[in-house]
Amino acid sequence: MRIHFQELFDTLHRVLIKTGFTNDRATLSSRLFAETTRDGVYTHGINRFQRFMRMIENGSIDIHASPEKVVSMGALEKWDGRQGPGNINAYLSMERAIELAKTNGIGCVALANTNHWMRGGSYGWQAADAGMIGICWTNTLPNLPPWGADKPLLGNNPLVIAVPRAGGHVVLDMAMSQFSFGALESYRERGEPLPVDGGYDGDGNLTRDAAAIEETGRVLPIGFWKGSGLSLVLDMIAAGLSGGLATHQIPVEPELETGISQVFIAMNISAKDAADRIIADLKSVDGVRYPGERTLDLRRENMEKGIPVEVQVWDDLQRMLV
Amino acid sequence: MRIHFQELFDTLHRVLIKTGFTNDRATLSSRLFAETTRDGVYTHGINRFQRFMRMIENGSIDIHASPEKVVSMGALEKWDGRQGPGNINAYLSMERAIELAKTNGIGCVALANTNHWMRGGSYGWQAADAGMIGICWTNTLPNLPPWGADKPLLGNNPLVIAVPRAGGHVVLDMAMSQFSFGALESYRERGEPLPVDGGYDGDGNLTRDAAAIEETGRVLPIGFWKGSGLSLVLDMIAAGLSGGLATHQIPVEPELETGISQVFIAMNISAKDAADRIIADLKSVDGVRYPGERTLDLRRENMEKGIPVEVQVWDDLQRMLV
Repeated sequence: MRIHFQELFDTLHRVLIKTGFTNDRATLSSRLFAETTRDGVYTHGINRFQRFMRMIENGSIDIHASPEKVVSMGALEKWDGRQGPGNINAYLSMERAIELAKTNGIGCVALANTNHWMRGGSYGWQAADAGMIGICWTNTLPNLPPWGADKPLLGNNPLVIAVPRAGGHVVLDMAMSQFSFGALESYRERGEPLPVDGGYDGDGNLTRDAAAIEETGRVLPIGFWKGSGLSLVLDMIAAGLSGGLATHQIPVEPELETGISQVFIAMNISAKDAADRIIADLKSVDGVRYPGERTLDLRRENMEKGIPVEVQVWDDLQRMLV
Repeated sequence: MRIHFQELFDTLHRVLIKTGFTNDRATLSSRLFAETTRDGVYTHGINRFQRFMRMIENGSIDIHASPEKVVSMGALEKWDGRQGPGNINAYLSMERAIELAKTNGIGCVALANTNHWMRGGSYGWQAADAGMIGICWTNTLPNLPPWGADKPLLGNNPLVIAVPRAGGHVVLDMAMSQFSFGALESYRERGEPLPVDGGYDGDGNLTRDAAAIEETGRVLPIGFWKGSGLSLVLDMIAAGLSGGLATHQIPVEPELETGISQVFIAMNISAKDAADRIIADLKSVDGVRYPGERTLDLRRENMEKGIPVEVQVWDDLQRMLV
C-alpha cells in the first residue's frame, strides 16, 4: 500500500504525543521518521519505529531528555545526549555544529550517551540544506569483525558526508560493512543475491547469500582491511572527542544498544560552484550516479504516488493509537 | 643495501641545497622524505625523489614558494600553496591546523594550488605527535574509474586519519582504490598476486594480477560503489573549501600533476584514555593489527639495521651530487 507523506507524518506524530512527547519534539522526531521513509530508506524509517517504541518502553530511550553542553573549546563542543531519542539528539547536534560553523568557519559537536540516530543521512541533508558541508558518524554496538578475525569487535559505524549543491545535494551515507544489516535484510526478503561478496557463510567462505551472512554475523568491511581500519578510527574519535562509550563498551543486544557516541561537523563552503562542475563532469559518462541522486528520484516518486508501506507495519502503527 | 637514517637524510639534504632550497626548507623536506623511507613507504620516500626533482625541473614545483593565507573564517582558513613543494606545504598546513585547534578545539586549513604531498600519513603522525586527532586528504589527477564506468573520472584521493596514543599512534593512510599505484607496483615487482581483486584486466574481468591492472588503469574503488562515492565527496570538499582545482581539472600526465587541493583538520582530544582502551580490546584477539602498528615495527627495524635502499636508486642520488 502507499500512504501520503502527510498521513504518515500525522500518524507517527499522534503515536508520539500519546507516548508523552511534547508537541515540538513529536513534530521533529516524526518528521525525521517520515522523511526517511519518503526517501526510500524504509529500514530506518517506519520499519524501525516499532523497535524505537520498544526501546522507550525498556528504558533505553528517555523521551524527555535533551542534550546538554558539557565542554566548549570554541568551535568544538562536547555534549551529553542523556539517552534522549537518537534522531532528536542528532538533529539538534548538527544544528549546533552549523551554528558554530557560521561563526568559526567550521563547527564540531561530539555527542556522548545518545541513541541510534536512525538514518544518518538525515543530518547530512540537514547540513546541506543550510548550505554547509556536513560530516557526521556514529559508533554502534560490536557487529563487524575486524580484518583478520571472526569475532565482531568493531561497529559498522555509518559515516555521512554531504556537500550542498543547487542541482541536488550530494549525500554519502555509508556503513563500514559492505552491506548494512538493513540492506542484507532487504536482499534476503527479496530473495536476491548480493551484487558482490558481503561476508562469510557458515563454512568461512565469502558469499553473496544475505541470509547466510545474517546467520554468521560475519559481514565484510568495505575494502577488507581498509574499512576495518576506518571503522576503528571513527570509533576512537567518537569516543575520544565525546568522552562517551566506545563500541566495545556498548551492549550487544540491539534493543539495549544505548549510550553510543557521535560526531557532527559542519563547514562553511566558499567555492559553491565546484560541486556543480564536478557533478557535470561525472555525469558526462552514461550510467554513473552520485550519492544522493537516487534518493532525489525516490523522494519525488514517493511524494507523488504516496510512500510504500507494508500492510503489517501500517496496521501495527494503527494499533498503537487505540 | 641498507643506509642509516642520518646518511639518507644528509644525502637528500645536500641534493636539495644544491638545487637551491634554503637550509630550513631543505631540512624539512629531506626529513619528510627520509622518515617516509624509514617507515617502509618506499614508493613515496626515496623511490619518489627522482620524480620530485624532475617536477622541479619542469616547473611544476616552485622550490621557493610558501603557502599564503587567503581567507580566515576563524577556525577554518583557506591557503594558496603557490605550487610549492608538496611535502613542505602539507606539513606547514597541518602545523597551522594544529595551532587553530589549540585555540578553537578544532582547526581546518584548506589548501589550494599545491603539489603531491608524498606520504599522506606523515601529516597524520605529525598531528598525533602534537597530541591531536589529525584528518587530512588530497585530491589527485583522474586515475580511478567511478563505479559504473571504465574511464578514470575520480582521483584515488588518499585519506589520512590519525589518533594519538601513548602506546603508539593509530594512523590510517588509505587511497580510495583498493590498492594504491605504489602498492600495485610493489606486487608486480615481487611477482605476487594481489590478496584480493584490485581492478579489471584487458577483458573487463576482475583480477588479482597487478600488472594487468596497471595496463588497463582500471583500479577498483574500496567497497565498489562506496569508495567511488567517498572519493567523489572528498574531491568536492577539497575543491569547494580551498577554491582550488578539482580532480577533473588536474593534468592527467603524472609529472605535470600540480595545482591540487588538500584539507587538513586537527582536533583537540579530551578523553585520551579511550584510544588505549579500544586498542587493548582489539588486541585481545590474536592476529588483529591496527593501522600504524606495522609502521612502528618497520621503523624500529630500519633505525636499527639501516633502511633498505635499492642500489640503482642510491647511485642515482649520488650522481645528483656530482
